[in-house]
Amino acid sequence: MIKSKKDSLIIFGKHAVREMLERDPGHIIKISLRSGLDAELTLSIKNLAAASRIAVEMVSAHTLDHMTDGAVHQGVAARVSRTEFMELKEWLASVESIQNPCVLILDELEDPHNVGAIIRTATALGAHGVILGKYNQAQVTGTVYKTSAGTIGRIPLMRVANINDTIKKLQEAHFWVIGLDARAPKKLWQEKFDTATCFVIGAEGKGIRDKTATNCDYTVSIPMDNDVESLNASVSAALVLYEWKRSRK
Amino acid sequence: MIKSKKDSLIIFGKHAVREMLERDPGHIIKISLRSGLDAELTLSIKNLAAASRIAVEMVSAHTLDHMTDGAVHQGVAARVSRTEFMELKEWLASVESIQNPCVLILDELEDPHNVGAIIRTATALGAHGVILGKYNQAQVTGTVYKTSAGTIGRIPLMRVANINDTIKKLQEAHFWVIGLDARAPKKLWQEKFDTATCFVIGAEGKGIRDKTATNCDYTVSIPMDNDVESLNASVSAALVLYEWKRSRK
Repeated sequence: MIKSKKDSLIIFGKHAVREMLERDPGHIIKISLRSGLDAELTLSIKNLAAASRIAVEMVSAHTLDHMTDGAVHQGVAARVSRTEFMELKEWLASVESIQNPCVLILDELEDPHNVGAIIRTATALGAHGVILGKYNQAQVTGTVYKTSAGTIGRIPLMRVANINDTIKKLQEAHFWVIGLDARAPKKLWQEKFDTATCFVIGAEGKGIRDKTATNCDYTVSIPMDNDVESLNASVSAALVLYEWKRSRK
Repeated sequence: MIKSKKDSLIIFGKHAVREMLERDPGHIIKISLRSGLDAELTLSIKNLAAASRIAVEMVSAHTLDHMTDGAVHQGVAARVSRTEFMELKEWLASVESIQNPCVLILDELEDPHNVGAIIRTATALGAHGVILGKYNQAQVTGTVYKTSAGTIGRIPLMRVANINDTIKKLQEAHFWVIGLDARAPKKLWQEKFDTATCFVIGAEGKGIRDKTATNCDYTVSIPMDNDVESLNASVSAALVLYEWKRSRK
């Protein structure tokens, strides 16, 4: 069956495509390589693809530019079936046996580089899921795949229409919901995260929305020096996840 | 005096240029705005520039594309005089009165986004300097300015020809030099950083070089789950700096 474009997306870059071939070949529909690409690289990708019976086509640089909307594709792209999202209810059931699970909510993060980097760090630091809003939020595009460094598919992802409703449902399931907010007097390192925990990460620049912050059980800030007003969203997410991991060790 | 191109570089993006106008106007040589740019933005930049007697020229989108090598300039660019680097010797003298100062060494980081993000985080978390190698290392370009979110000029930067020689000089000045290495058995959170400290951050993917790791007093790793092999270099740097800051609080 040929998937329609609506159900697939393009990932690109030699590392991203190779990672996907090694980790999750079942989601690759077809691979496109630039004619005249380094022979060793071409051969290694063709061998990996052959092992999973994935078609490889040789195309012009122009075709790859067009496929990837002019991104830095390094001569390598793949059409993959779309990311599978888990339902919140199903996820809650799946973590019931885990002691003090941890999930992130991304609150209107627009930069796909940050979304990919956060998925990578959340996977590395052992979080149990990442929730993305359906609206005003970068979705799981090729750039997100690339910056996630092959970690998509190794952590449950959820997509929800209403962040505030999701916070309420998590609270009903006995999660403590903690917003990251530069204005919060409580410092990150004053906390111990010894319950089921949800961290809410706000957008780069704008930070967490007021309404969202109000719905959190409490908010914490990362102490900052030198008049710096904010950290990159992926750095903020990494610091709260590290503190969570450290407090569990 | 008109600076030669060799002594200047182009920064771009409305936030980056505005930050520079507010924080460090003395280094701006000239500002270029796209004709037909949003009137409010044009006016606010012109007012800020006028206050510091900086020339503003209106140019075509094409000229801006050319100036910034096709980067996402948002219609705003500035030619600035090059970053000033401090000599290591001078820096060591300047931190003598600080209890347990902290400096980062970037060991062949090639991605300017990471270099900018690390400078931003190092400034925010109160580190006292960042050392960059002269070779095989992304230098302080317009992209680094943009991703540093206006923090360049607020933390001493140094540029050295030989990383291993620099490590030796720091050790002679009683710094403990700690390499971040995914292979290290010692975990980051097992340490207390209660001396003058230098962290060495290796390149994305490749990690710290073997020779560099050998010259460190010791190496630490960030514990990782789910078979993830590495974190983004700017995330790794953020975690060690956070742990350093926490252990000083």
